[in-house]
Amino acid sequence: MSSEQAAEEMQQLNTSSESLEAQREARKQAKAAEKAAKEAAKAARAAQRGQKQSSALEPEADDPLAAHYGDPELVQSQAQTERVWTDVADLTPKLDGQTVLVRARVHTVRGKGKSAFLVLRQATATVQAVLFVDDVTVSKGMVKYASAIPRESIVDLEGRVVLPQAPIEACSQTQVELKVTALHAISRAAPLPFEVTDASRSAEAVRKAAEAGELLGTVGQDVRLDNRFVDLRTPANQAIFRVQSAVCQLFRESLQARDFIEIHTPKLLSGASEGGASVFQFDYMGRPGCLAQSPQFYKQMAICSDMGRVFEIGPVFRAENSYTHRHLCEFTGLDMEMTIKESYHEVLDVLDALFVHMFTGLNERCARELAVISEQYPFEPLKFLPKSLRLTFAEGIEMLQAAGYDVDPLGDLNTELERALGKLVKEKYNTEFYILHRYPLGIRPFYTMPCKDDNRYSCSFDIFIRGEEIISGAQRIHDPALLAQRAQELGLPVDSIQSYIDSFKYGAPPHGGAGVGMERVVMLFCGLDNIRKTSMFPRDPKRLTP
Amino acid sequence: MSSEQAAEEMQQLNTSSESLEAQREARKQAKAAEKAAKEAAKAARAAQRGQKQSSALEPEADDPLAAHYGDPELVQSQAQTERVWTDVADLTPKLDGQTVLVRARVHTVRGKGKSAFLVLRQATATVQAVLFVDDVTVSKGMVKYASAIPRESIVDLEGRVVLPQAPIEACSQTQVELKVTALHAISRAAPLPFEVTDASRSAEAVRKAAEAGELLGTVGQDVRLDNRFVDLRTPANQAIFRVQSAVCQLFRESLQARDFIEIHTPKLLSGASEGGASVFQFDYMGRPGCLAQSPQFYKQMAICSDMGRVFEIGPVFRAENSYTHRHLCEFTGLDMEMTIKESYHEVLDVLDALFVHMFTGLNERCARELAVISEQYPFEPLKFLPKSLRLTFAEGIEMLQAAGYDVDPLGDLNTELERALGKLVKEKYNTEFYILHRYPLGIRPFYTMPCKDDNRYSCSFDIFIRGEEIISGAQRIHDPALLAQRAQELGLPVDSIQSYIDSFKYGAPPHGGAGVGMERVVMLFCGLDNIRKTSMFPRDPKRLTP
Repeated sequence: MSSEQAAEEMQQLNTSSESLEAQREARKQAKAAEKAAKEAAKAARAAQRGQKQSSALEPEADDPLAAHYGDPELVQSQAQTERVWTDVADLTPKLDGQTVLVRARVHTVRGKGKSAFLVLRQATATVQAVLFVDDVTVSKGMVKYASAIPRESIVDLEGRVVLPQAPIEACSQTQVELKVTALHAISRAAPLPFEVTDASRSAEAVRKAAEAGELLGTVGQDVRLDNRFVDLRTPANQAIFRVQSAVCQLFRESLQARDFIEIHTPKLLSGASEGGASVFQFDYMGRPGCLAQSPQFYKQMAICSDMGRVFEIGPVFRAENSYTHRHLCEFTGLDMEMTIKESYHEVLDVLDALFVHMFTGLNERCARELAVISEQYPFEPLKFLPKSLRLTFAEGIEMLQAAGYDVDPLGDLNTELERALGKLVKEKYNTEFYILHRYPLGIRPFYTMPCKDDNRYSCSFDIFIRGEEIISGAQRIHDPALLAQRAQELGLPVDSIQSYIDSFKYGAPPHGGAGVGMERVVMLFCGLDNIRKTSMFPRDPKRLTP
Repeated sequence: MSSEQAAEEMQQLNTSSESLEAQREARKQAKAAEKAAKEAAKAARAAQRGQKQSSALEPEADDPLAAHYGDPELVQSQAQTERVWTDVADLTPKLDGQTVLVRARVHTVRGKGKSAFLVLRQATATVQAVLFVDDVTVSKGMVKYASAIPRESIVDLEGRVVLPQAPIEACSQTQVELKVTALHAISRAAPLPFEVTDASRSAEAVRKAAEAGELLGTVGQDVRLDNRFVDLRTPANQAIFRVQSAVCQLFRESLQARDFIEIHTPKLLSGASEGGASVFQFDYMGRPGCLAQSPQFYKQMAICSDMGRVFEIGPVFRAENSYTHRHLCEFTGLDMEMTIKESYHEVLDVLDALFVHMFTGLNERCARELAVISEQYPFEPLKFLPKSLRLTFAEGIEMLQAAGYDVDPLGDLNTELERALGKLVKEKYNTEFYILHRYPLGIRPFYTMPCKDDNRYSCSFDIFIRGEEIISGAQRIHDPALLAQRAQELGLPVDSIQSYIDSFKYGAPPHGGAGVGMERVVMLFCGLDNIRKTSMFPRDPKRLTP
């Protein structure tokens, strides 16, 4: 990449804060931001002048242990040594007595006369490191240096693994601590917009402390998101994005084992302004372009191109002005499409096996991550069956009616009714994951295959986790004449979809597929309350930064 | 997805042809398109009136074998039967004498009096199916029906596997053929924009035929791309996109085995119009937005957020007006970023292992696909070493100078010099895959870490396949003061990148990474001449459809 490209790239980044929150939160945020900005400006000026932020950066001149502490020169690929590094998560009693080298973040630091206590953090793992002045391995200057390292700085620390008399309950590594023999801050943190410890606290812990008369800090959603690169450091967030990574991997594993191939469809499409409010439009070399709202038509074209079974993991763009707990303007779509011999149940068979594989895999491979998330955001493990429940839409309506809900048997279910049905299903079938199929034709897209036996219904389905929809899918119409007819029946402008219809006219196999909202899967599997918690840098109608 | 969303989605799709080619090609194309359009319109009208295109759709009324042929009702999820289907690729002599059921495309069809010969195609596999009137299993009406099925239609065919006296050289399944016992066209193809057989031919075959006085059809790039959903059916294209799928899978495998986690960074960024010509800009709910040119800054933020080792596979958008064989306006980026302890060579170690794993994996897992590609586009297997060659930029310059090239030792290498160096390296080291590192600082982005020992150079690298760059990477500057200083030195507006610089001020680990152009890897590994061959629906300055 050239320097010019880099220059343009940087202009794309802008982390200016956008307040969304109530008055109270806004005031708090403004104050914190102002304070942080002032301190940051001061630190930056100092840093740019090449001055030291603290007098404790360098060892004291006459200290015989001077080589064991102090800020080293910048890591700049000078050389590669044979030094061996240990991960914090690997610090266990079996290393007792050994000297280890660790690079980690300073989670907390506390100087106390002739001693200093640090907690080091690496992702979700923490360990305590201690310094006591003995003038043999630890000098006064060294303790002073350690005590002055700002939280969130990154240090290279050498220490001897020892077994503490009592477990260190505040750390993930409860059975060991490190007696520091060398300490070098390789990257010092400026004053933080908020404390990672405050951002890591559960609501329950805050409530309990309040009952005991102690006021613990919390951090509002907007302050977190404005400083997402700090917020993401909390143990729960470290775990959430590892779970997210596993969701994608498990999705692929299951499909690849069934001969699906991965495709990449274009996100830049041609389109005029008539595209409607929910499409992002842009200028493409002087022509109107818009961003793909789904890979739907392209994955169908892949099927018409004999790809057989395809999947894609990629961004999906929706210019919808919905500021809810479960909508984003950009999310990650897990999409699949496949030929079928006879029925959309073949698609459901694949999805059923896929999600059982995914849930089982998450519980097995991400047990530690799920426990970490649960500490801050408590949740019950998802109830699911080895073979997923399939209910027809009509059966769902019956259950709702029997429970006293007034529902239109051929209308759509709103969020409230979906939740209610989820509850009834859980009570009756003991599962929070189920399939609802044969939706009314009238509430599905024009390209959905109608049911042969009763054309009020369609060969379609939604799939739910904890009463919220995560997947929508169907058998698609592969016959160009029927497709044109359905478009006409729904009053769609056939002209504008002629090329889509045409793609089926050179021989098209029966096929079906589905689209999954990845962030929703993570949110609902982990019982989280907001989709912004499962998007690394969320985009909604009010947020486009950082 | 709602009907309204679907309606908007369709408007995004537009396959109008865009002529790019020379006068001759354009004339040919226009003629073909006109003809296709006329025939398509006729077929569509006929289909919409519910009329039959051919009198041969239905069995003859008095034919006792009437149940064995004819167009069946539309596959509409009526029921699921226990019928067992066989893939064309699985039709081998060990099935001799068995009756099988196949759903496949009609590749070619030839009626000849009382017999008909079909070639069925599934992805890259083909098999011959034959009908001879015997009035026991095959009637006259059946042969007439078979003979009239248009090429590229999809049929359900039942037949007995027999061993032909001589191998069927024209098919991939040379050792067997099918004696048809039932035949039903489930999706009939309209007249094609071009023949798949013409699009599947190698230049060599056309040349040889011409020498023998025979004029074989070929299909130009624009006609292919205008009708990509037909073009993608050629065996070479079927193979190319399976190789592409494997490239992504092998990339991930190698990184996941090394504890990388998968992330999804936003493609919608905030940005003003000053962003420059190579950024796509759009309106984001009333604010200026632009599309991500690379996940660079976000993957660095993930590192500053303690993700440790991350990768992303996703679209990258470049509004560059470069109409070359290796540039696209939208391509798939394989990106990775990782903390390092000491040196960018740690990144190179990961990339070296990754690409050796990828190339070995492709040769092993995609042997058949590579052979199929080679049939239409002949290429030599890539030469690579078990441990990849690393040359410094200075060493590369020396090799070029020794070979008589006049090169600036601190300037950038143009495409011609890169190719020349690739040739020299291949001659000297017998590899077409190598790493060039320690690029001059002046030609790299401002965020590239300078070399400590000689600041004319930087901690950066490019990686080449067959003399063309596929990867660019480096150690990044993690010190906010140095980052600001470098931006100033290069005359960049520090204000506009303040938020990027700020993301490093809360403690940032040393780190480095790289970005790989996925379509380039596939193109160069397979020795293809144009990146449009490895993008499913390519986007360039002149093409935004289909």
